[in-house]
Amino acid sequence: MVNIQFLLTGTELMVGDIVDTNSVMLAQSLKEHGAELSRKVTLGDDFSALVAEIEHMSRQADVLIINGGLGPTEDDLTAEALAKVIARPLEEHKEALTHLQAWCDKRGFRLEGANRKQVILPQGIKLVANAVGSAVGFSVEHNNCLIICTPGVPSELKVMWAEEILPLLKPRLPNLDKVKTIKLHLFGIGESAIQNIFHNQLADWPKEIEVGYRAASPLVELKLTVRSDSAEKILPNWQAKIMGLLGAHVLSFKNLDPQEPATIAKCLVDLLAQNNQTMTTAESCTGGLIASNITRIAGSSQVFEAGYVTYSNRIKSELLKVSPDTLEEYGAVSEAVVREMAEGALTISGSDWVVAVSGIAGPGGGSAEKPVGTVWLCWGKKGKLKTQCLVYPTSRQNFQRFIANAGMDLIRREILEIKELPSYFSRTGK
Amino acid sequence: MVNIQFLLTGTELMVGDIVDTNSVMLAQSLKEHGAELSRKVTLGDDFSALVAEIEHMSRQADVLIINGGLGPTEDDLTAEALAKVIARPLEEHKEALTHLQAWCDKRGFRLEGANRKQVILPQGIKLVANAVGSAVGFSVEHNNCLIICTPGVPSELKVMWAEEILPLLKPRLPNLDKVKTIKLHLFGIGESAIQNIFHNQLADWPKEIEVGYRAASPLVELKLTVRSDSAEKILPNWQAKIMGLLGAHVLSFKNLDPQEPATIAKCLVDLLAQNNQTMTTAESCTGGLIASNITRIAGSSQVFEAGYVTYSNRIKSELLKVSPDTLEEYGAVSEAVVREMAEGALTISGSDWVVAVSGIAGPGGGSAEKPVGTVWLCWGKKGKLKTQCLVYPTSRQNFQRFIANAGMDLIRREILEIKELPSYFSRTGK
Repeated sequence: MVNIQFLLTGTELMVGDIVDTNSVMLAQSLKEHGAELSRKVTLGDDFSALVAEIEHMSRQADVLIINGGLGPTEDDLTAEALAKVIARPLEEHKEALTHLQAWCDKRGFRLEGANRKQVILPQGIKLVANAVGSAVGFSVEHNNCLIICTPGVPSELKVMWAEEILPLLKPRLPNLDKVKTIKLHLFGIGESAIQNIFHNQLADWPKEIEVGYRAASPLVELKLTVRSDSAEKILPNWQAKIMGLLGAHVLSFKNLDPQEPATIAKCLVDLLAQNNQTMTTAESCTGGLIASNITRIAGSSQVFEAGYVTYSNRIKSELLKVSPDTLEEYGAVSEAVVREMAEGALTISGSDWVVAVSGIAGPGGGSAEKPVGTVWLCWGKKGKLKTQCLVYPTSRQNFQRFIANAGMDLIRREILEIKELPSYFSRTGK
Repeated sequence: MVNIQFLLTGTELMVGDIVDTNSVMLAQSLKEHGAELSRKVTLGDDFSALVAEIEHMSRQADVLIINGGLGPTEDDLTAEALAKVIARPLEEHKEALTHLQAWCDKRGFRLEGANRKQVILPQGIKLVANAVGSAVGFSVEHNNCLIICTPGVPSELKVMWAEEILPLLKPRLPNLDKVKTIKLHLFGIGESAIQNIFHNQLADWPKEIEVGYRAASPLVELKLTVRSDSAEKILPNWQAKIMGLLGAHVLSFKNLDPQEPATIAKCLVDLLAQNNQTMTTAESCTGGLIASNITRIAGSSQVFEAGYVTYSNRIKSELLKVSPDTLEEYGAVSEAVVREMAEGALTISGSDWVVAVSGIAGPGGGSAEKPVGTVWLCWGKKGKLKTQCLVYPTSRQNFQRFIANAGMDLIRREILEIKELPSYFSRTGK
């Protein structure tokens, strides 16, 4: 097996300021391509330690990926350390300078001083393009090891990994492309509930199809991996069985860019666009989170025209025409109010679908009758609105995130005419 | 300085199934006690690799903390590998057996088979008590290095760290309890610009005050660390100098919970609450992101009543009373439209402050005249509205996040009557 090692640099990683997600991304991707990380070292920004480590690792590994330390500041030492290891001088790299100049021009920045440091690279390296950030990556062979230097910013590494580095590694990974993985994204069901279904209803599951889970809160990712042609042949049949049992929870996407996270918002925007329909939102306790999740998706302007954040009672009445009497009689967190919010938003926006939420996100504002975590949702089409109360006591942020996702999921289920009730309805209030 | 290294073992860490939080906890604690992690290595469950690594690390380090691999299963190899390194036989450890027996009794488990593996330890080790789990920790001196083996379960490590390991380390950490760190959170200025200020205007910066940076996009965290009484004494004076030069960019917080992230939204909610004022939002391209950032903050209902997400032209007119003629003449992304959006939102909400944004988040919708990344902002109070055009071409998500933060920052600056222009105004459009 190819020995692939990963060297992470940056004092921020050593002092606990940052949780390392880069190596998780990278390890998962390697695994999907039939390879594995052999060893990972994390170092602070210490020049001589860095030099010794690169030399030591390059003697053990076939591929060494160095992450971080490419930026413009004094503690960015990767290029200098690598130059020392491979005994080559540093020089201003023309192609890198062109990239940096273009990057600055595009943003109206002047290229000066410290920034220029990013293009001082060891002589003879090969550039690895960075389609997103200012610092280029670069690679060189040393001690029969392919050393690849990459930026520490996760979004930049992710793009560079998929577009530049995997193709570079391809000749060295014999199993690449023999492995096939299918990812299913589920909402509203937990890992252990899925496992129970496998135990009880899929007891004859074939060993050649590996099953993996990953919690990607609030979703669960279910991965099916096959490593042979024979396993690949039986995969569709078993996937269909899973869909029969779990299909209501599985999100589908029309065109999910590999770089794009799988979200309920993306799934919902796809569905609405396919049906040529629009939706609107009337949000109290989620405070615009549903609207911002939807509008995060490119192309959402096709399906989303208006969102209403009505945090106070006064605004609920003035903007969405919720009756002050209803507010007075039932309180803001009530079935009657959330229904009037939904009706108001539908009427004034003219959208096809609506979701309205009113609840107590906490930490304050709870009572014995309506504790923190209580929320009423109303969703659906004109004349066909449904309501439900959930109780989801957790941190304010987790509450808002879960309820925003549940709100979108409820519209998704309506559009798909899913009869099955989502499992989070078991968390009901009165 | 004491050289402390950390060896994490476990294939689950190598294949990306687990995000390593143990070393973050440990590094933060060390830092609080004036020490630092020098190096960290992560390895899969491979016996010979483990033996080589322990030997190699024990030659470099004064303290080596090994984490994981103490459990009952076949891939738990730490005790066996350590025995090989220190050339001592494995034997059933009496005290460890007593602990395990008590642990099993308490839970009504029978102590048998595989479980007994956890007490087969290298001869001559010292136990490190585990108050929570079944596997004890243990320590030994080798190559003048104190090697401490610890359980991988985060909750067990946490207790063992505080109660057993820190006291063990105390004689080796002379700076324990002498360190003080101040964190400043800045927006609208980059790391390299801050460094330029240090170079040019703070050239006489004293060495006893360590300066560190961390990009916490879109903020930059600036950390000042002192490790002696004399340095602590001069810290306020130098902090004041920084504030004189960078103060306009520094966010202040009234009461920031240590667990709570420092955000512009939090700073703004604090400021508005102190002034007993309210704000509203009129969002097109940020689609509710400003509203959801604000309402994420506990207590925001005091300062935020209404937010308007007006994604389409029709809704801009119907909801915020933007004149169709203005939209027709100037287009949605224009000074005139964003001003009418702000005026409309102020009038119908009755809030004290407003921020309105209209721009092209991309990836589609750009033109030669108004490329992707162009955005108009309008902010301020009734009768005192200001406008500005920025050009910030990046990914849709980064654009939305930056502009949402800039919008909040502009209100923050107005409330504080900061005359200095934010540096992102250099990214202007026409």
